[in-house]
Amino acid sequence: MFFLLFILILISHAIAITKYEESYLEVPIDHFSLSKTNDTFKLRYLLVEQFHIKGGPIFLYCGNEADIKVFYDNSGFLLDIAPTFNALVVFVEHRYYGQSMPFGPKSLNSAEGLRYLTVEQALADFACVIDSLIKKYFSTMITNISYPIVAFGGSYGGMLAAWLRIKYPHLILGAVASSAPLLQLNNLKLCENFYHIVTQSYRNENCSQAIKASWEAIRNITKTHEGKKNVGHIFKLCKTLGNEDDVGKFIDSLEEIYVNLAMLNYPYATSFLAPLPGNPVKSFCDKLKSYGTIQTPLALLQAISSALEIATNYSGTTKCNNIEITNNEPTDFAWGFQACFELIIPMCSTKEDIFEPISWDYEKFTKECIKKYGVVPYSPNKLFLEFGGATMLKYSSNIVFSNGLLDPWSSGGVLANISDSVVAVLIPEAAHHYDLRGANPVDSKYVLDARKFHVAQIRKWLNIS
Amino acid sequence: MFFLLFILILISHAIAITKYEESYLEVPIDHFSLSKTNDTFKLRYLLVEQFHIKGGPIFLYCGNEADIKVFYDNSGFLLDIAPTFNALVVFVEHRYYGQSMPFGPKSLNSAEGLRYLTVEQALADFACVIDSLIKKYFSTMITNISYPIVAFGGSYGGMLAAWLRIKYPHLILGAVASSAPLLQLNNLKLCENFYHIVTQSYRNENCSQAIKASWEAIRNITKTHEGKKNVGHIFKLCKTLGNEDDVGKFIDSLEEIYVNLAMLNYPYATSFLAPLPGNPVKSFCDKLKSYGTIQTPLALLQAISSALEIATNYSGTTKCNNIEITNNEPTDFAWGFQACFELIIPMCSTKEDIFEPISWDYEKFTKECIKKYGVVPYSPNKLFLEFGGATMLKYSSNIVFSNGLLDPWSSGGVLANISDSVVAVLIPEAAHHYDLRGANPVDSKYVLDARKFHVAQIRKWLNIS
Repeated sequence: MFFLLFILILISHAIAITKYEESYLEVPIDHFSLSKTNDTFKLRYLLVEQFHIKGGPIFLYCGNEADIKVFYDNSGFLLDIAPTFNALVVFVEHRYYGQSMPFGPKSLNSAEGLRYLTVEQALADFACVIDSLIKKYFSTMITNISYPIVAFGGSYGGMLAAWLRIKYPHLILGAVASSAPLLQLNNLKLCENFYHIVTQSYRNENCSQAIKASWEAIRNITKTHEGKKNVGHIFKLCKTLGNEDDVGKFIDSLEEIYVNLAMLNYPYATSFLAPLPGNPVKSFCDKLKSYGTIQTPLALLQAISSALEIATNYSGTTKCNNIEITNNEPTDFAWGFQACFELIIPMCSTKEDIFEPISWDYEKFTKECIKKYGVVPYSPNKLFLEFGGATMLKYSSNIVFSNGLLDPWSSGGVLANISDSVVAVLIPEAAHHYDLRGANPVDSKYVLDARKFHVAQIRKWLNIS
Repeated sequence: MFFLLFILILISHAIAITKYEESYLEVPIDHFSLSKTNDTFKLRYLLVEQFHIKGGPIFLYCGNEADIKVFYDNSGFLLDIAPTFNALVVFVEHRYYGQSMPFGPKSLNSAEGLRYLTVEQALADFACVIDSLIKKYFSTMITNISYPIVAFGGSYGGMLAAWLRIKYPHLILGAVASSAPLLQLNNLKLCENFYHIVTQSYRNENCSQAIKASWEAIRNITKTHEGKKNVGHIFKLCKTLGNEDDVGKFIDSLEEIYVNLAMLNYPYATSFLAPLPGNPVKSFCDKLKSYGTIQTPLALLQAISSALEIATNYSGTTKCNNIEITNNEPTDFAWGFQACFELIIPMCSTKEDIFEPISWDYEKFTKECIKKYGVVPYSPNKLFLEFGGATMLKYSSNIVFSNGLLDPWSSGGVLANISDSVVAVLIPEAAHHYDLRGANPVDSKYVLDARKFHVAQIRKWLNIS
């Protein structure tokens, strides 16, 4: 207990002593059309001025699909290095998440409200924030110089940071894009990678067989009404499993937990997407092992449910588990919209994986998207047309793509250098954008080296010897 | 007469023997939002397949603010060089011009109809056309190769070609941007250049003093009702000048003619914006000289009106001159919209110029724009934010910026190399995107050299030895 408290104090060290000012900038709802009113909305950003000394650079975090405070709390790296650079740190919220709602609370209620939720609009928001920061911190905008501004981002935010450098190189000097699976967009060839990596994490801890066996157990037992009731009871589900569809959703929800444990497989306790212990995959597998040899399918499910409590009941206060919880959050509704229409990432699992095999069916996927949102999608080629996939990277410069090799999303990451200045960093034993997290005593040499590399690159971009 | 006919036959040689197919592609009205209907419209393009041999490149002309056929008829260079490259030639119309109307005929009736008339949308249209051409001519889209596609454009179309390379380098290999004044966008420093260059053209032909004197003559004579009537009669105006406002408009319309003669000061007869003789500035000034020493203000105006007939009555069939004609064309309404809200080009004249001095007043300009279109403008910084002005050019590659030194629009052109592959070509004695015109026997060595340079650059981009 003492040890855990010690770690938690250290985790939050940089964050605890750092104060941000919550600010808002009026930005156009639609950057690419003109209207009688040119409606705007308030985009939120968090401003950390305390390390900034005049002449120092701006570190701009490109928020992605959550409240910007979540990223602030889980990206201490920017605050850790800010003093060395005398940097101003700014965390910008992504439109349609957190407090940045183009149409207020009703933004997320309908497809009509969500219509301006596109990557292009989000990048143009960031450009407006940069414009306002330049005016405030570097006097007026001059059209023939580059400003000392560096973008950062993780996951989809990493894509945004890279795309900001690709499409707006006059506004930022370089980008640190962590765990950004941009090569996987509409790329069927990388379809299997994600679940292979998830599988490998569980295989490393010797519990992949148990998970794999659990699906057959669930399918068999839930064939009867009594079985459904039993399984619901074992997993403390809030609602009894009524039919096969419910069983499918239940399995999906378990798979999502396994994926999250793999993504968030940090060596210390965190509260990013959910509160989790350190090394959650190992924690889960170890608990499972403590059951010894499991004799029956029901006993297996009992053991898994109990082991999963590290995720489902880490706080010890969970009363029951809702198998549909993730799909009901407004944020997930917005992210689902993006994943449906622009950020299309083919995913499939094979019989080699710990999950039930699922093939990628673009037509089925699209049908479900249209049904859910009532929106006609762009061509799946849309993102390539605008952002150019791997080809565009050849024409860019000053981007670091980092990927933790434990991270399932390294599946679509840039894993090899593209050029002298669009470079890849691979971090063994690291999970989803681990390198952007604040310093922690248990950080491995690998992640420390990655952070050192980032700092060296940023120095190079800023021309600091 | 025989000589003129001979020239005309040669001018139209490449065009006469070349057949284009008029094609249309369905493109989204709004590329950057998602809707229930995802409305599209038919964008027109002209396809010239006759020189194309499988494996040959695509030469894509980026249409600007007119019917695409106007550019087809005045950009023979692409057709002239197509056979050497086995190239497919495509002239793409700009949305809201010619036949490419997002909302049919009512597109140009209101600000609401014009709302998707932005540079970003126009470039995205071009990207869609390229996408469809790649699928048709280079089999399916592969995300990690570059296709042999070269963009061309003149004036605003030259900016579009350059921006296409800057923002979509994965879709085109390089751009030939002729007479593209992109450095003048919202750039007050270059405000005076344009009219200085116009002035120099007339000074070269020794008639700048007469033009300069004419404004005072007009202002003085039109102080009386009788004088207004006289001036209207001398210049064959369709409507009598009623008040000072009319006099101002009349002067504006004369200035526009002088500007056009300078812009279109080609050494042979052309029909680009209007039918004109060869060397129109010289033609005008020579006719003026033939009047000998002009004694009175009225005689000066008489001489000017008569000399201007090379522009106002080249066909010999003009009955009267409408001083508001240019502002009433739907195309001018669309272009005015673009010039008001995105393509803001500060222009001013000084007492050194042949025109009445006019200062640049952004606030007044904006007020008039809002009054005319009822639209709230973006920040004047908008285009810089999206396209980065001179700064962005440092980060791009494979662009030739060519400028004729007779062309007033060289005022805002890229006149010096930016890097090894973003290069400037200056063409002495050449007017507005002269280099993109088809071969003509009277072409100077300068323009022939410029075209050779373009061909050499294109070969380099296409990796053809």
